[in-house]
Amino acid sequence: MLIDKKLNEFLAELKSDSPAPGGGSAAALAGAIGAALAIMVGNLTTSSEKYVAAHGQASQLVTELEEKLASLERYVDEDTEAFTQVMKAYKLPKNTDEEKALRSQTIQQAMQCAAQLPMKVAVICMEVLQMSGEMLEIGNVNAASDAAVAGRMAHAAMWSAIYNVKINLGSIKDQNFVAEMTKQVATVVDRSEELFIQLVHKANEKI
Amino acid sequence: MLIDKKLNEFLAELKSDSPAPGGGSAAALAGAIGAALAIMVGNLTTSSEKYVAAHGQASQLVTELEEKLASLERYVDEDTEAFTQVMKAYKLPKNTDEEKALRSQTIQQAMQCAAQLPMKVAVICMEVLQMSGEMLEIGNVNAASDAAVAGRMAHAAMWSAIYNVKINLGSIKDQNFVAEMTKQVATVVDRSEELFIQLVHKANEKI
Repeated sequence: MLIDKKLNEFLAELKSDSPAPGGGSAAALAGAIGAALAIMVGNLTTSSEKYVAAHGQASQLVTELEEKLASLERYVDEDTEAFTQVMKAYKLPKNTDEEKALRSQTIQQAMQCAAQLPMKVAVICMEVLQMSGEMLEIGNVNAASDAAVAGRMAHAAMWSAIYNVKINLGSIKDQNFVAEMTKQVATVVDRSEELFIQLVHKANEKI
Repeated sequence: MLIDKKLNEFLAELKSDSPAPGGGSAAALAGAIGAALAIMVGNLTTSSEKYVAAHGQASQLVTELEEKLASLERYVDEDTEAFTQVMKAYKLPKNTDEEKALRSQTIQQAMQCAAQLPMKVAVICMEVLQMSGEMLEIGNVNAASDAAVAGRMAHAAMWSAIYNVKINLGSIKDQNFVAEMTKQVATVVDRSEELFIQLVHKANEKI
């Protein structure tokens, strides 16, 4: 599993001349880094008496962020697995018409999974971005830069996941699926950009 | 060493109720992820005959990116070490005037190091952002999303490092040092934003 690899081993696999792991797993990992940092800010808030008024909201955010972190850690491996399934489908035999039809169908199914998975990552990263902004607002001011970094990571991870959705949509023939996913992409991007502007504004005030 | 830890162990340390590792190490790691992905795109370009015209530039970029990656991997640990030195300085005794003076001087020195280090990270991330944009321009179009993710990571990492510079500058008394660093921050941010706009524009064309 990628998530069990050492940082330097993961980076070595990422840079290697093999398409997986690639940008999709990197997106999930960057989102996980953001979630972990936002949790740290929450912990540095609930452990300080100075922020007693924020303890309730901070600990609620930490609970939700722990769930997002666990999902993103899983998606680091699942994205690479989804990509591997696409590569496998392309290697199916195509000698007869029957084989060609089966191959094409298998490729399309694998491609749909490989587009849906980063879509889930993008949605979770948008949520981590929102929670990082809340943490920056209410949390320990000594860790304001950490909350801002959490938001920047989540925002970059959201976009990274969206690029992976879009590049896979280019190979999908089911136009209803493509239209539905394209609508979801627009919704997530628009909402994330709103959240991002708020985060940057707060970061400029506090840092 | 943090860089020798497993991804899930690093994330667990990051989220813990201890201020280090924090946003500074996360910035260096995100920059390293960007550099590694840009190298992957380079490798997927030089290994394809279709991009023979780009082999020279791609392999030159890979060589430079390998250097940046090695530096960023080092900075994952060095940032946390610099922060630890600040924490240590604050714990020095302050019973006598002499002790107070020594403590204050040690804190200031440690703070300057803790501001200079993320400044170096920010500059390298700006360079990775630039090279990711070049790779997106000339590289294997099948890996266009990976080059775009590399650029997004480098951009978020640059900003994350800058937040760490700025939060440390707030505690530094030497106003010449603060003025010089503030000038450097503005230069790196302005140049990076130009590079980022170009990258996003190219990504929208290709993905």
